[in-house]
Amino acid sequence: MIRVGVVGGTGYTGVELLRLLLRHPGITVSLITSRGEAGKRLDQLFPSLRGACDLAFTDPTKADYSGCEVVFFATPHNVAMREVPDLIKQGIRVVDLSADFRLKDVATWENWYGESHVAPDLCADAIYGLPETHRDAIRSAQLVACPGCYPTAVQLGFLPLLEAGVIDRSQLIASCGSGVSGAGRQAKLGSLLTEAGESLSAYAVAGHRHLPEMEQGLSGIAGAPVNLTFVPHLVPMSRGIHATLFARLTDASSDLQSLFESRYAGEPSVVVLPQGEHPATRNVRGANTCQIAVAQPQSRDTVVVMSVIDNLVKGAAGQAVQAMNLMVGQSETRGLEGVALAP
Amino acid sequence: MIRVGVVGGTGYTGVELLRLLLRHPGITVSLITSRGEAGKRLDQLFPSLRGACDLAFTDPTKADYSGCEVVFFATPHNVAMREVPDLIKQGIRVVDLSADFRLKDVATWENWYGESHVAPDLCADAIYGLPETHRDAIRSAQLVACPGCYPTAVQLGFLPLLEAGVIDRSQLIASCGSGVSGAGRQAKLGSLLTEAGESLSAYAVAGHRHLPEMEQGLSGIAGAPVNLTFVPHLVPMSRGIHATLFARLTDASSDLQSLFESRYAGEPSVVVLPQGEHPATRNVRGANTCQIAVAQPQSRDTVVVMSVIDNLVKGAAGQAVQAMNLMVGQSETRGLEGVALAP
Amino acid sequence: MIRVGVVGGTGYTGVELLRLLLRHPGITVSLITSRGEAGKRLDQLFPSLRGACDLAFTDPTKADYSGCEVVFFATPHNVAMREVPDLIKQGIRVVDLSADFRLKDVATWENWYGESHVAPDLCADAIYGLPETHRDAIRSAQLVACPGCYPTAVQLGFLPLLEAGVIDRSQLIASCGSGVSGAGRQAKLGSLLTEAGESLSAYAVAGHRHLPEMEQGLSGIAGAPVNLTFVPHLVPMSRGIHATLFARLTDASSDLQSLFESRYAGEPSVVVLPQGEHPATRNVRGANTCQIAVAQPQSRDTVVVMSVIDNLVKGAAGQAVQAMNLMVGQSETRGLEGVALAP
Amino acid sequence: MIRVGVVGGTGYTGVELLRLLLRHPGITVSLITSRGEAGKRLDQLFPSLRGACDLAFTDPTKADYSGCEVVFFATPHNVAMREVPDLIKQGIRVVDLSADFRLKDVATWENWYGESHVAPDLCADAIYGLPETHRDAIRSAQLVACPGCYPTAVQLGFLPLLEAGVIDRSQLIASCGSGVSGAGRQAKLGSLLTEAGESLSAYAVAGHRHLPEMEQGLSGIAGAPVNLTFVPHLVPMSRGIHATLFARLTDASSDLQSLFESRYAGEPSVVVLPQGEHPATRNVRGANTCQIAVAQPQSRDTVVVMSVIDNLVKGAAGQAVQAMNLMVGQSETRGLEGVALAP
Repeated sequence: MIRVGVVGGTGYTGVELLRLLLRHPGITVSLITSRGEAGKRLDQLFPSLRGACDLAFTDPTKADYSGCEVVFFATPHNVAMREVPDLIKQGIRVVDLSADFRLKDVATWENWYGESHVAPDLCADAIYGLPETHRDAIRSAQLVACPGCYPTAVQLGFLPLLEAGVIDRSQLIASCGSGVSGAGRQAKLGSLLTEAGESLSAYAVAGHRHLPEMEQGLSGIAGAPVNLTFVPHLVPMSRGIHATLFARLTDASSDLQSLFESRYAGEPSVVVLPQGEHPATRNVRGANTCQIAVAQPQSRDTVVVMSVIDNLVKGAAGQAVQAMNLMVGQSETRGLEGVALAP
Repeated sequence: MIRVGVVGGTGYTGVELLRLLLRHPGITVSLITSRGEAGKRLDQLFPSLRGACDLAFTDPTKADYSGCEVVFFATPHNVAMREVPDLIKQGIRVVDLSADFRLKDVATWENWYGESHVAPDLCADAIYGLPETHRDAIRSAQLVACPGCYPTAVQLGFLPLLEAGVIDRSQLIASCGSGVSGAGRQAKLGSLLTEAGESLSAYAVAGHRHLPEMEQGLSGIAGAPVNLTFVPHLVPMSRGIHATLFARLTDASSDLQSLFESRYAGEPSVVVLPQGEHPATRNVRGANTCQIAVAQPQSRDTVVVMSVIDNLVKGAAGQAVQAMNLMVGQSETRGLEGVALAP
Repeated sequence: MIRVGVVGGTGYTGVELLRLLLRHPGITVSLITSRGEAGKRLDQLFPSLRGACDLAFTDPTKADYSGCEVVFFATPHNVAMREVPDLIKQGIRVVDLSADFRLKDVATWENWYGESHVAPDLCADAIYGLPETHRDAIRSAQLVACPGCYPTAVQLGFLPLLEAGVIDRSQLIASCGSGVSGAGRQAKLGSLLTEAGESLSAYAVAGHRHLPEMEQGLSGIAGAPVNLTFVPHLVPMSRGIHATLFARLTDASSDLQSLFESRYAGEPSVVVLPQGEHPATRNVRGANTCQIAVAQPQSRDTVVVMSVIDNLVKGAAGQAVQAMNLMVGQSETRGLEGVALAP
Repeated sequence: MIRVGVVGGTGYTGVELLRLLLRHPGITVSLITSRGEAGKRLDQLFPSLRGACDLAFTDPTKADYSGCEVVFFATPHNVAMREVPDLIKQGIRVVDLSADFRLKDVATWENWYGESHVAPDLCADAIYGLPETHRDAIRSAQLVACPGCYPTAVQLGFLPLLEAGVIDRSQLIASCGSGVSGAGRQAKLGSLLTEAGESLSAYAVAGHRHLPEMEQGLSGIAGAPVNLTFVPHLVPMSRGIHATLFARLTDASSDLQSLFESRYAGEPSVVVLPQGEHPATRNVRGANTCQIAVAQPQSRDTVVVMSVIDNLVKGAAGQAVQAMNLMVGQSETRGLEGVALAP
């Protein structure tokens, strides 16, 4: 059994990570920390864990990670960059679910997050935790920076098109919708059922922190700069991300269905739907899966890709466990075989 | 008091039309017909009308519209085209909420609806019922073809940009979301709460019947052909349409906020939001209003317009009443002043 | 035109009150105050009011109510009791939507609200604003204490049974469900869509502040003490209260349907459904109506009453306007004729 | 590996059963039948199974169950009673999730289901599949009749009180709420998101088919007849049942918390919450767990029990797997350890 620790864990990403880790046959969760909830049992905060978990939160100042092979950070941004360097020095490997190490360009990070990065050197070392593009590097990584939820759905959707070089990189468009859990387990007015329920609205159109991460990733895939317009929407549901992607085809005669099917043939977490089907977020709820469909409406030169994930699983906790499995040499899908919960 | 009749009226558009007409101070609803529900009280079918309506459904074969100045069709497509010609001959004016007379090109209609049009001549005569583009023609129209819900939101969003000629007409993109009431009051598997709830998915990406209507309207506005990629999504809510529109600016230095504000300055049903705000469907629930915002993310050359309506009001019944007000010379907003219901 | 003022008004009760008052043909809203939002336009806080309202919030310390005939308090408890006495002295009549003057027994109020009441004398003078039981007294009231939302639904449901004396008063049961707007427009964790959505749970089973109000009202109706077990539930919807009431019949042969129909025959805000129908909160959404049904399952000796209201309308703002109409001698339903919004 | 078959399986109970069986480490699903969908792949009907299941539906007339140790019926009522006798004769054990064998009194069954029972003898032999009351009998059963969803929640809630004899059996009350999946995967008007969404309503107050099953079970537990008033409500959510139970205490001084805790101390599927907590359906979503709390408001003589389950898991498919585990001698919770999905 591999011993792991979790830093943070009072948010939705945290409880989802625990849902997966507690049932992972090769893992033992040694400790989980929380500044605000130290001493409290986890199942008191999260009654969904009753009967499944006897752990209590540890005060982070008293946390001893020495027996842990891997430590997960399920914290807001700005925490991991302060604590990871010390763990790395101890030889403990880290899977960071926050945004601290996702951007290679430190100045860009500092610009979007409005503060100085205190571990800039680690940004260069961190491996981007998207197995579909960085599988081998993840295996030997000391520090994995897990992708954001929107970036996972968007990159997996554009990936085959950019690798094949069949779209105009200068005007990519991503119109995405997210469930409210993407806003975190925080008492915000805009996340109330009475505000977010029975409504659809865009947000952060002027600029969302996932934009530079997506442009970095897509440029890396394309091997050349890309230009992305990204509009996220708040959708009246708890979980799920749906990315609807648009690009102009440079070669309108490509067999797009085959392109997607062959690119993802061996990928355990990506399912390409048969031509003509539309993915729905409900079909991946709770599962570590991205379902994708591609279409070319009216046979014109605009391609449309639809890509769905559960933002808390393939968009966060599931992807983190997938990375951990690769790091410790387990089967990549171990502990992640749960079938989606529908309805 | 102006006497009106309603054909159909057992669907969501019908009950919404009644909600408005029953409280319209200048209107009396003389009769409402239904083949399937003849003889049944309306408030038996729609308990929301209890205490507000003593009408019962009339058998359409026994309906006498002779005292009616205006007759509304709140029927599925394929009904109005059979019955409207006779009413027009009687000198009764018609507001058709269905799709039968929206397309000027009969062949296109027949292609998308898969049947022959039995009143093709009226397609030419029918006035498209969007007051923001056809106000004067509506006033004197014998037959008004009310726009579809998506086409209303999409056209109002692109309108100022196309009129000003500041976008590339060859690649317009509309990524739209609709509440489930858009699918009608019919027992369909995909509209169940257990199927549509807690999920987001695109549909009809290969081709939706509102596409030719939108391209016809947008081309008319632009005075030249346009090319639109339209992706509708089913959103887990009852009411509301959110259109997110993308186009490439041919002049990236335009003052888009001023363009929208000045175009819609005098329009009673369109509200342009202050720069930086995002419209939400909840803010127009039950109201005959389109709220619009325009943005130019990162100051790049892609413009984003967000446009929201209540699909059953400004997207159907409210717009029909607005047209009727114009036709009979009443104040355009009479009976439509209700404030949106939020939350 | 009667001039009114509103104290508070940044919550859901406030915006709902404005929705009704702004369209009331006999009313002008002179001013609305808010400590936190002074100077801000209302439609900036509530975009649903855009185009319908040019008011801005007034600083309460600078508010001048001298031209107002009636002032509404749409504040949390604990505010009205401090400010109402001064208004009353000025001869201004008050409709208080908060809990400050609902209980006649000041000690009980102090016990449940955990503080001293600073205007205990007014508790005796205040008229309970339920028109179905206190219509005449409301007409001449200086101060009306509007009922809570649960108490409205529960009292209207038990009323005919208690007046007729056909149930055992010693064990009344009310199992009620409320939409999340009942928790107010406040950033609380439990009201998040991610917490309250897709879930049903009871709350405050040990004791809810509406219990003493209900027992006071029901005892008043019965003319003798009653004993009520009250279990409220949080329901994943925005608006609506459903009360399911149980009592043991002392005379199982009563014609309950007739009893309810005759009691509510002349009541403009209460609709008794035909035997066998079940009320649904959706059918009163936005309307100042209580829909009620009564049943006697298996013809046994337990009666079941189902009573639904919109908590923000008949349970708050609508009932307040109804009281005001009575106070100023207008038609009781003026400004309240809006038909429920369904779906 | 134990081979099992599934009859039916195109409904929500069926897909949930597959979600569990496909990941059960001791089970192989040999075949699954459907009249209407024969030949179609399961993951075509249920895209949530993509990547998890290669099965296709078998035509029931060609189904060969000979290799199966256990066959599940996930059919509407009226199917199992026709097909089970033949399987039993072949020595195949059956777990029936439908209502066909739940009632011991055949006349009662025929009265509530409005048809003749074609296998009345098996009604006597069938073991009621509630492990908390019939564990030992289930182990050796040839035919298990799985409890209905409401009956599971209601019986587990009243069980400790009835066994201890501390309540008045003559007036038990169950006010319950169910998610819409309880109405099945059928295109019914009342189950549309536009009808069931944003609304709460009771249904079947005059009589619900689960009433006789509950009275049979509760009487069996009590060892004497009980009288239950049962009011189910439709709640705007997909999954979950919340039972709120009321009874008059014959001994108001009982330590109810201890009573519940000790009764359920060893039960793997029942969690008694700490005093003062309220269960929520979200905390058991997807889990084979019943969470229960008991309260005695105002220390009066009415006890309130709150009991929640996932109607598709502990209320159907999970309980069926739990019974199968007992029948074949596996650990009772095998394949059922999944943690609830929250949010």
